[in-house]
Amino acid sequence: MTLKVYLSGEIHTDWRDQIIKGAEGLDVSFDSAVTDHDASDDCGVRIMGAEPDKFWHDHKGAKLNAIRTRKGLVDADVVVVRFGDKYKQWNAAFDAGYAAALGKSLIVMHGPDHQHALKEVDAAALAVTETPQQVVDILRYVLTGALPD
Amino acid sequence: MTLKVYLSGEIHTDWRDQIIKGAEGLDVSFDSAVTDHDASDDCGVRIMGAEPDKFWHDHKGAKLNAIRTRKGLVDADVVVVRFGDKYKQWNAAFDAGYAAALGKSLIVMHGPDHQHALKEVDAAALAVTETPQQVVDILRYVLTGALPD
Amino acid sequence: MTLKVYLSGEIHTDWRDQIIKGAEGLDVSFDSAVTDHDASDDCGVRIMGAEPDKFWHDHKGAKLNAIRTRKGLVDADVVVVRFGDKYKQWNAAFDAGYAAALGKSLIVMHGPDHQHALKEVDAAALAVTETPQQVVDILRYVLTGALPD
Amino acid sequence: MTLKVYLSGEIHTDWRDQIIKGAEGLDVSFDSAVTDHDASDDCGVRIMGAEPDKFWHDHKGAKLNAIRTRKGLVDADVVVVRFGDKYKQWNAAFDAGYAAALGKSLIVMHGPDHQHALKEVDAAALAVTETPQQVVDILRYVLTGALPD
Amino acid sequence: MTLKVYLSGEIHTDWRDQIIKGAEGLDVSFDSAVTDHDASDDCGVRIMGAEPDKFWHDHKGAKLNAIRTRKGLVDADVVVVRFGDKYKQWNAAFDAGYAAALGKSLIVMHGPDHQHALKEVDAAALAVTETPQQVVDILRYVLTGALPD
Amino acid sequence: MTLKVYLSGEIHTDWRDQIIKGAEGLDVSFDSAVTDHDASDDCGVRIMGAEPDKFWHDHKGAKLNAIRTRKGLVDADVVVVRFGDKYKQWNAAFDAGYAAALGKSLIVMHGPDHQHALKEVDAAALAVTETPQQVVDILRYVLTGALPD
Amino acid sequence: MTLKVYLSGEIHTDWRDQIIKGAEGLDVSFDSAVTDHDASDDCGVRIMGAEPDKFWHDHKGAKLNAIRTRKGLVDADVVVVRFGDKYKQWNAAFDAGYAAALGKSLIVMHGPDHQHALKEVDAAALAVTETPQQVVDILRYVLTGALPD
Amino acid sequence: MTLKVYLSGEIHTDWRDQIIKGAEGLDVSFDSAVTDHDASDDCGVRIMGAEPDKFWHDHKGAKLNAIRTRKGLVDADVVVVRFGDKYKQWNAAFDAGYAAALGKSLIVMHGPDHQHALKEVDAAALAVTETPQQVVDILRYVLTGALPD
Repeated sequence: MTLKVYLSGEIHTDWRDQIIKGAEGLDVSFDSAVTDHDASDDCGVRIMGAEPDKFWHDHKGAKLNAIRTRKGLVDADVVVVRFGDKYKQWNAAFDAGYAAALGKSLIVMHGPDHQHALKEVDAAALAVTETPQQVVDILRYVLTGALPD
Repeated sequence: MTLKVYLSGEIHTDWRDQIIKGAEGLDVSFDSAVTDHDASDDCGVRIMGAEPDKFWHDHKGAKLNAIRTRKGLVDADVVVVRFGDKYKQWNAAFDAGYAAALGKSLIVMHGPDHQHALKEVDAAALAVTETPQQVVDILRYVLTGALPD
Repeated sequence: MTLKVYLSGEIHTDWRDQIIKGAEGLDVSFDSAVTDHDASDDCGVRIMGAEPDKFWHDHKGAKLNAIRTRKGLVDADVVVVRFGDKYKQWNAAFDAGYAAALGKSLIVMHGPDHQHALKEVDAAALAVTETPQQVVDILRYVLTGALPD
Repeated sequence: MTLKVYLSGEIHTDWRDQIIKGAEGLDVSFDSAVTDHDASDDCGVRIMGAEPDKFWHDHKGAKLNAIRTRKGLVDADVVVVRFGDKYKQWNAAFDAGYAAALGKSLIVMHGPDHQHALKEVDAAALAVTETPQQVVDILRYVLTGALPD
Repeated sequence: MTLKVYLSGEIHTDWRDQIIKGAEGLDVSFDSAVTDHDASDDCGVRIMGAEPDKFWHDHKGAKLNAIRTRKGLVDADVVVVRFGDKYKQWNAAFDAGYAAALGKSLIVMHGPDHQHALKEVDAAALAVTETPQQVVDILRYVLTGALPD
Repeated sequence: MTLKVYLSGEIHTDWRDQIIKGAEGLDVSFDSAVTDHDASDDCGVRIMGAEPDKFWHDHKGAKLNAIRTRKGLVDADVVVVRFGDKYKQWNAAFDAGYAAALGKSLIVMHGPDHQHALKEVDAAALAVTETPQQVVDILRYVLTGALPD
Repeated sequence: MTLKVYLSGEIHTDWRDQIIKGAEGLDVSFDSAVTDHDASDDCGVRIMGAEPDKFWHDHKGAKLNAIRTRKGLVDADVVVVRFGDKYKQWNAAFDAGYAAALGKSLIVMHGPDHQHALKEVDAAALAVTETPQQVVDILRYVLTGALPD
Repeated sequence: MTLKVYLSGEIHTDWRDQIIKGAEGLDVSFDSAVTDHDASDDCGVRIMGAEPDKFWHDHKGAKLNAIRTRKGLVDADVVVVRFGDKYKQWNAAFDAGYAAALGKSLIVMHGPDHQHALKEVDAAALAVTETPQQVVDILRYVLTGALPD
């Protein structure tokens, strides 16, 4: 069994790297959005021309990013969505909803502070975690049956 | 043509009532989540028994609410999602993602302050609005072809 | 919002009647399998001719019943599956799996004795209940937002 | 033609090994749930933290196992479900219903004692068998056209 | 429960009328292809202009008839396909395959002479019958649970 | 049998009215895009605010119109697409492709001058017509079996 | 581009071999049913035990064969169905209907004698051919753009 | 992440080659229709026999080409549709609609002259471009996150 995992959400800590490194040796492949914040914001106008209106500036970029995001979500077996401590992170919740509607196995990661605000998202998940290590442990268990010591 | 519209998101202002009242006389039906905040939070434990752990208290309730939310989203032709000024509102963004993945026509409503944070959600929408009146105008136009004066 | 509810599972107590009676006045319709045990067992051979081999006797009947069961499951918004105290009830678990794969909202009903054996089925459900009254309360809440006193 | 086969159900005998060994040389790959009973029961709390309530202890584990089970069922061409002599095995029947709703080719394996209780499951199957050897013979025939001597 | 039934196949006997008449009083609606043989053959050229080549003459008509046939098959809950004593009736078998792929409940009707030739079609059916009365009995049982005396 | 028909394409002649009038008395309902050219072009900016850039002016309007168009196409049994003598009419061809991918029964209407340019669209259609009367004749035949004199 | 082709229908001439040999060097893979007539008829009872009733003898075999047939049809890009001069060949027409409902590209092969009887099947096809060489020419053209001299 | 890209539309300039060459080194594969105009027009009659009527001549060819086009569209992650300066190019708009209905990521390419006429197509796209270089830049960004200097 090979798992395709899409890592969505917070981009200001290295949680993706921790999961990818922790999962070394497992039969799993990872995808995620472009996590370079500036590139992600400006990709649309950089490639297709400037927009004086910030709404359309963002619109062009968000649609380009959607090409990658949807490909990643549609292809995935498992979607991990992490909510960090800051920002609205509505795109993370949007991805979670998108993944749920596609029937993907959803793993949510967030701290206890966000528990109540994320209850609808958690209710759609097959696992609610707090740390990258827990996600790694889940992937290892799902693929090999091995549990952490 | 009859439109089924699901109204998702912020529950602290009367935007739903404004839209429903404004759309009187149009061939449209509306559904939405239970908007009584206390009932929505406690429905699970009130019906199926108390939980000492807040996570499971919320979990039971969120799942009950999902019965109604998913029915509303699956049946809808148009999903309107409003983001208010306060709170995380991750369930609103989750609904938007769910609706997008189902191919529903998505209308987003929010103020200019949230424009950048909602750019991915807006990019998936067929209309981005600021007021209930604009949503009413859209529904009227879609159903009758009539534009506001 | 109108709910279509399919009632699956145990046929030796009057739980279906309790739910249907309890839900009077709500905008809900109910379907279920033929609950006359003898008719259900013999329908195939009674209509299409006797079979000397018990396997084919049962096979003919089970297939006829599947016409009704699948129609009920496919059309339903909510599938309630009750596991009673006796018998294997594998058809109830089969219906639960069928409903889950179709993305139906699943409500499971069983006593505490079966909790461990039904953990996989419960994990796919949006509500796990013990009594018909709880199912009625859920349907009322989902449709009207009202909670029991 | 390559067949992907998911082996579901009873975990106390070596029927999976017999099929896998018997199918050596055929163009077929096998998946199944984690069959280590203790790991399967405790995986949720081991990775995501203890639960004092047995229901939630089991719930956490059952959801983790669902990540693997659904991946296996969704990817499979053929789902083999074995019902043993003991236990309720509702998860086996649940998997059979899930597979049937997805349109998978279903092969059921059980002894004659369970024939009547499993008639609805058998009615959804393309083959009803009693032994691992028969499953191997089916896989060989489907892939190569060769019949047993 | 209301059943939508599509009646496909042989057009030279009054089996459709027998079923429709026998099902009076049941909550069932029937559709079928245009059964006027000449109209069915010539509809294309009569409406859209003559074709000197018989292939295109037939092609135009067959496509027009497909508008009705596919609507009937797609909308149906149950598809009844009758094979008569004469002619190739490949369109009946085509409809049966179409219905099976859509997951419709398939009822086949034919005499014992065709049993071997129709074994693949019968294998996809939930009931194999010989007479219109048996189909009526099935519809009555599925809808009401009542068996013939 | 009731047919839902979506009328797409050219908006400068009264072909829609001719079909609707010709189909009086038949069990058919019609939908189409907003055919008021100015309203269709300006709906977006009229409701959601002016855009200095013509691209975004059109973009806002085209997306609003898509709410209606997609609802009409998704709900339809039959999609009629007419190509007139003038203009690019790419939206008509887009609708035809959209309808074809959804498996709708496609009827194309155009004059002989466009035959070669429309060959790919015609190849996806179940009928290629030249006049509104032919479409009416097709709808009558499909619904009643009656052919024109 | 790689094409997966399923070859269905008549099993008494070597048309499959002619196509496979003719397509050597093209990026195409072929599947088909088991074409050993006796094995195909008896596979069910040989593996799962004898049946005194010919109907169930055939039923067991037809279901086993369906495991292979459906896998082949579901995986295919192109389905070629050949109707020979003899026999009812209802399974060929059934496969054609199944393939059409799945949206597969259908190529039909038959002699001119069967043109009228196959008009509904031909109407669902993207190509109607008479010889294996024509099928090879089509596959070569679709994959490489090269036409026969 | 590997992208499958289908290049549809105008065949009289070398835009396809420019994109393919520009994308060298990226993890992307390309498909497109047969772009040899004469072969594309005549393939049907060359392989399956002449037709005196131009409509059927074109019909046979267009259907053969549809085998390739639909395979390419169904398999694609991204569909690029270019509208050139000349001709009706209805097949390009048809492909765009087909791709949109399948939920593919759509990139449209055209000059400013066609902006208004293509507004409905552009509204369904995730990117609207003018040059092959912009498409290459998009593919590179989507796959690697790198933006042009």
